[in-house]
Amino acid sequence: MPQQGCIAVLNAGSSSIKFAVYEAERDGPLLFHGQVEGIGVAPHLKATDADGKSVAEQRWDAGALDHHAATDAILELGRKLLAGRPVLAFGHRVVHGGTAFAAPTRVDAGVLKALAELVPLAPLHQPHNLAPIEAIARAVPHIPQVACFDTAFHRSQPALAQEFGLPRKLTAEGVRRYGFHGLSYDFILTQLGEAMPALARSRLIVAHLGNGASLCAVRDGKSVASTMGFTAVDGLMMGTRTGALDPGVLLYLMERHGMDAHAIEDLLYRQSGLLGVSGISSDMRALRQSSAAEAREAIALFVYRIVREIGSLAAALGGVDGIVFSAGIGENDPRTRAEVAAGCRWLGLEIDEERNRRGETRISTDRSAVSAWIIPTDEESMIARYTRQVIAGS
Amino acid sequence: MPQQGCIAVLNAGSSSIKFAVYEAERDGPLLFHGQVEGIGVAPHLKATDADGKSVAEQRWDAGALDHHAATDAILELGRKLLAGRPVLAFGHRVVHGGTAFAAPTRVDAGVLKALAELVPLAPLHQPHNLAPIEAIARAVPHIPQVACFDTAFHRSQPALAQEFGLPRKLTAEGVRRYGFHGLSYDFILTQLGEAMPALARSRLIVAHLGNGASLCAVRDGKSVASTMGFTAVDGLMMGTRTGALDPGVLLYLMERHGMDAHAIEDLLYRQSGLLGVSGISSDMRALRQSSAAEAREAIALFVYRIVREIGSLAAALGGVDGIVFSAGIGENDPRTRAEVAAGCRWLGLEIDEERNRRGETRISTDRSAVSAWIIPTDEESMIARYTRQVIAGS
Repeated sequence: MPQQGCIAVLNAGSSSIKFAVYEAERDGPLLFHGQVEGIGVAPHLKATDADGKSVAEQRWDAGALDHHAATDAILELGRKLLAGRPVLAFGHRVVHGGTAFAAPTRVDAGVLKALAELVPLAPLHQPHNLAPIEAIARAVPHIPQVACFDTAFHRSQPALAQEFGLPRKLTAEGVRRYGFHGLSYDFILTQLGEAMPALARSRLIVAHLGNGASLCAVRDGKSVASTMGFTAVDGLMMGTRTGALDPGVLLYLMERHGMDAHAIEDLLYRQSGLLGVSGISSDMRALRQSSAAEAREAIALFVYRIVREIGSLAAALGGVDGIVFSAGIGENDPRTRAEVAAGCRWLGLEIDEERNRRGETRISTDRSAVSAWIIPTDEESMIARYTRQVIAGS
Repeated sequence: MPQQGCIAVLNAGSSSIKFAVYEAERDGPLLFHGQVEGIGVAPHLKATDADGKSVAEQRWDAGALDHHAATDAILELGRKLLAGRPVLAFGHRVVHGGTAFAAPTRVDAGVLKALAELVPLAPLHQPHNLAPIEAIARAVPHIPQVACFDTAFHRSQPALAQEFGLPRKLTAEGVRRYGFHGLSYDFILTQLGEAMPALARSRLIVAHLGNGASLCAVRDGKSVASTMGFTAVDGLMMGTRTGALDPGVLLYLMERHGMDAHAIEDLLYRQSGLLGVSGISSDMRALRQSSAAEAREAIALFVYRIVREIGSLAAALGGVDGIVFSAGIGENDPRTRAEVAAGCRWLGLEIDEERNRRGETRISTDRSAVSAWIIPTDEESMIARYTRQVIAGS
């Protein structure tokens, strides 16, 4: 593997594609990263180098760019910035690997077909994840591509943790709990495994608290249960998503308000959560700055739901040794960490206020029975790592 | 209040009306009880005295009897069996009291109207609960009637425990967690309060495990949280109900299978749970007797979900002192109790196998940090008690 090569990572969402390019060697540094935002609305590409210095910026007219064209624009930018250095492989975040894909996988026509068949399980995300893979296969078919799945980390869960109380025919069809944020959990456990191997083998609850939010119960480095289920709307309340919701509420919305699937989806994914409860913002920073009672209520509900789900996951683990905070809110909001920790005092967690305020790696007191940690997550870096491994092994 | 009078209790479901008649004095004994089953299909009335001896039986042609006519048949039977002893009041189980009815309430035209306005919140149950009230008001308008609510016990819950992560307009409209089985929890706490007042004031999780199943977290005798939410389908897996379900599953069923609200309701309420997972039966006794792997899987999922939700409720309580088992499965299936207890070992619960097998009141060991109990429930007796109180106070 020539050392001058690099690894490109793409993470495509519904209206954006994030990208990052790393040196190809093991744990190679970031060269540049960026994103195309506003796809279909007001496309805008920005890229910065590892120091945060802008290296490219471009805008298009509304509608000028779909996901395929946005991928082409990223490829073109890459060619210019890399100035002849070869891309050895592309790694992609793919939200859904179903039950079959329990590890990162080199993409060929058969894999792409199998991943397209999972679209009904994740209609909002999977098509956008696959678009860049198709665009790259067309533009540079000789460069290997690797799909890394948000669901894969959770395939180690016991069968009972993955099952709903539905007729078995539906379970067999794929209506089960998949869990998501797997690349984030995997990155965090990899970091812990290197820095604190004993902790990584213990009973942990990892809190990925960003605009999307979930918890994962981990034992011996493996997922045992997770709050997200069939879709990424279940579990914790999030920025704009409801989290767990009595299914009877959907029947009520259909019958009482005449809402169809599309309207309900919009309500559950985009109008609820911190935004819906506060009526102010989906952004924790804005809510923390607000003096409105509605903002306090939204934050309190966010925290309450986390505390309840930590109890449920502790039961899945048969007790808990450590709690890890990560992602936007988990890494940057000491008050949310302190409030969650206060709700976990009954488990034996005692937070050190000063360590928490300073955002130290360990934020529990030395005598706390349950330890608490901040571990920044980096999904793109995890994808790069996996991509290197897969092409090295193939 | 003349001592020779009696109190009649009616508990109307979708295809049945249970009834029970008690002496009117405080804790007065049961005189007779029974039910009309198969309303609309193959109506069949049976009544027995307090010793279980049959005192009446009658059958009708399919369709001959709706809920009103069934109530009339019960009134006629009562007149015959009571032979001139007056009914001082009728007490009714009403599933939904919304947020307004937080205590048993004497029914007048205004109350009946307010209860009818709650039908959209419980379209499967509320109309059937109200039908006997209307029939009795027509037949014997001079006899007082008292509505006792399944939701009332839970109105003491903190606001956060009653809220979903939905836009606040929907919460204000009534889309919130009400909790059910309240008359059962109330009865159990009343029993505990009389027999073991210190325990009744501690942090308890009460498991009402019947064909319908829920858990309730109780502190100082008051509901703090419950697994059932907006409807009686949320929370634990039940005989034929899913329990908690990712709302995204409903969107999938609508879009992928073209199911409408009616078909989804049938799936979630009548084809799922123990029945759907096992493909064999909704009855725990039948599953325990089966050697099929599917039966074992259904039972294991039932238990797993209880254990997870106990963790969640323990978090709501900030720790747990005792666990109470009740209702059909909770009172009569030592294996389910033992399996749930095994999943709660991490909380400090240690079961005494012999006490559990014999079904003693206390089934935990003497040294167990968390105690465990069997308290038989009796919703009809609770309704009778409330009915006496309300008419005595009015």
